[in-house]
Amino acid sequence: MENNRFAVVAQPGDSVTDLSTPRPIIDEDRLARNIARTQAYMNDHGLNFRPHIKTHKIPALAAEQVAAGAKGINCQKITEAEVFAAAGFEDILITFNILGPEKLERLTALNDRISGLKVVADSATTVDGLSAKFSSRKPLAVLVECDTGGGRCGVQTPEDAAALAKRIHDAPGLIFAGLLNYPKPGAAEAVQTFLAAALSLLQAQGIECPIVSNGGTPSLFEAHLVTAATEHRAGTYIYNDRSMVRAGHCAEDDCAMHVLATVVSRPTADRAVIDAGSKALTSDLLGFADFGTVVGYPEAVITGLSEEHGVIDLSRCTGRRPEIGEKIRIIPNHTCVVSNLFDTMVFHRDGVVTRVEDVAARGLVW
Amino acid sequence: MENNRFAVVAQPGDSVTDLSTPRPIIDEDRLARNIARTQAYMNDHGLNFRPHIKTHKIPALAAEQVAAGAKGINCQKITEAEVFAAAGFEDILITFNILGPEKLERLTALNDRISGLKVVADSATTVDGLSAKFSSRKPLAVLVECDTGGGRCGVQTPEDAAALAKRIHDAPGLIFAGLLNYPKPGAAEAVQTFLAAALSLLQAQGIECPIVSNGGTPSLFEAHLVTAATEHRAGTYIYNDRSMVRAGHCAEDDCAMHVLATVVSRPTADRAVIDAGSKALTSDLLGFADFGTVVGYPEAVITGLSEEHGVIDLSRCTGRRPEIGEKIRIIPNHTCVVSNLFDTMVFHRDGVVTRVEDVAARGLVW
Repeated sequence: MENNRFAVVAQPGDSVTDLSTPRPIIDEDRLARNIARTQAYMNDHGLNFRPHIKTHKIPALAAEQVAAGAKGINCQKITEAEVFAAAGFEDILITFNILGPEKLERLTALNDRISGLKVVADSATTVDGLSAKFSSRKPLAVLVECDTGGGRCGVQTPEDAAALAKRIHDAPGLIFAGLLNYPKPGAAEAVQTFLAAALSLLQAQGIECPIVSNGGTPSLFEAHLVTAATEHRAGTYIYNDRSMVRAGHCAEDDCAMHVLATVVSRPTADRAVIDAGSKALTSDLLGFADFGTVVGYPEAVITGLSEEHGVIDLSRCTGRRPEIGEKIRIIPNHTCVVSNLFDTMVFHRDGVVTRVEDVAARGLVW
Repeated sequence: MENNRFAVVAQPGDSVTDLSTPRPIIDEDRLARNIARTQAYMNDHGLNFRPHIKTHKIPALAAEQVAAGAKGINCQKITEAEVFAAAGFEDILITFNILGPEKLERLTALNDRISGLKVVADSATTVDGLSAKFSSRKPLAVLVECDTGGGRCGVQTPEDAAALAKRIHDAPGLIFAGLLNYPKPGAAEAVQTFLAAALSLLQAQGIECPIVSNGGTPSLFEAHLVTAATEHRAGTYIYNDRSMVRAGHCAEDDCAMHVLATVVSRPTADRAVIDAGSKALTSDLLGFADFGTVVGYPEAVITGLSEEHGVIDLSRCTGRRPEIGEKIRIIPNHTCVVSNLFDTMVFHRDGVVTRVEDVAARGLVW
């Protein structure tokens, strides 16, 4: 009856079919293959690789990524970086504009603690805020974030990139560390054009640019087309998901995360209800009209989620249909947001539990 | 540098404007008003009220709901019920088909611990599983879940409801406790017709039906139209959200939860980027095309979320536009799933922190 969010949910040797549902599980062999395949690609093309830990938030997995050859890691939040710094990682890039006194205070402490902290900025406001907080005693490395078509953060032109680089370069307490972008998938040419132009402008100003960091899993295997880049960042590739299958990045058999669910109701011949809803699968559609792939039931469609229920339309199923009590597996649309819902992650090989890891950087406030 | 998911994020007396973002905050006055208004309505109509704790997952809030007059509480998972049982609640209804040895084991322990545990079933499979596990020593109360148009779980006809009620009634170890439905909003007439027909069939069989439980926040103030019901269940009403404003249940000023976010980038005149993405607001659309209401900027549209970024289109804003570093407030589409992402919840009155509560039942495995 003891309730503890860190309660042991499984032990090595358990069968995953005995796990209580809903529960994401990670296939060790697929995980290892995803890590190896991506690192081999980066090695082949002479690109440094920086895995984004937002997908798993587990230091032990980042250690496997680094052991395979990754140069450092990528975090999205200070609190994530703090967890990974505490676990011994030194080369950490936080790809976020850090603003406000509370976050700048924590960033200073983090920079004092590890040797290779880097952040990004895309405005004079962010740069000036960093500059006011850091000093030449322990300067902070800052990259300029460029919007090469992703439509999120980033300076809009190579000229603006060069100007902001100069501002960082001239700021006491800051070191200009490079350029970074978060691209739209399949837009290698536009990325290359933007970054090459910015590099020329930097060169003309005599400003060195040690890192040019490109990113994203969907077009990861086109990273070599961006010849201006020195490194690539990617997160989702380690688990993979339905959206990565659709993007052509991987096959369904490369999806290391399945969400185990139990059929709890079959109200009609055409409807099954499972115990995985938006609090297990999330509502991320990523362009899909439904909420995941049901393994072994290719014609089943997860048409709707409420918080703890998923409704599956079986009307197109020609073969057998899942029965009440049956455990099924779902490939989620988006693995990174599923990770973020669970405090622990269960790993298995051929259905036998190998380990349970704390999702250490989940749910932390900034 | 200490990292702890239960780290203190605020102290009473702090200003919410000093909180690190992203961070949901709860307005105490709106919270109290929402609790009082709903309970008064139930009292006026002689309906028992059973708040669903899935919205907040905080025992202290359930205690306020019960102090206001609620009859008991509603949980969606055994682990939620365990947390609330440990906090002293005795009358707990779990509105879920409980299946499988691990969950049945926990359910037995829970039934031994509290006096008023009730669950639902919508199939012979679920009933037989419960029946095999419980005994006359401490029988389990079971309601029949009816699908009166909600399209989720539930028996499909009043005849099936009566037949399943009989099966429960006849099962050693089980007590037939009533009928329950999860309605489509605005369908009071269909609900009444279904439930009244089932009640007639039960009466003809001589089976008493102590509880008839109807539910939902969107049409909560039409609960009295279902005259067959003895109680109503609702969760979202305590915080309210954008979907409840649209449903006509409440006004924008009744939304007790705002998500604080910081503008971290203004890459173009028409684009703002905030630090609240799908890991703070969730991707729940609930029929909307965008991801929340930006308080004070009615023409701003949150067009896209990635995990830690929200992209806001400002092109329709005629007045001033939010600046880099500015903290803004968002009314989320769906408050219940936002709760589920945070380990702690901050409460305030007029912007001054009153308390910080552990979201005790968040993220627990079954």
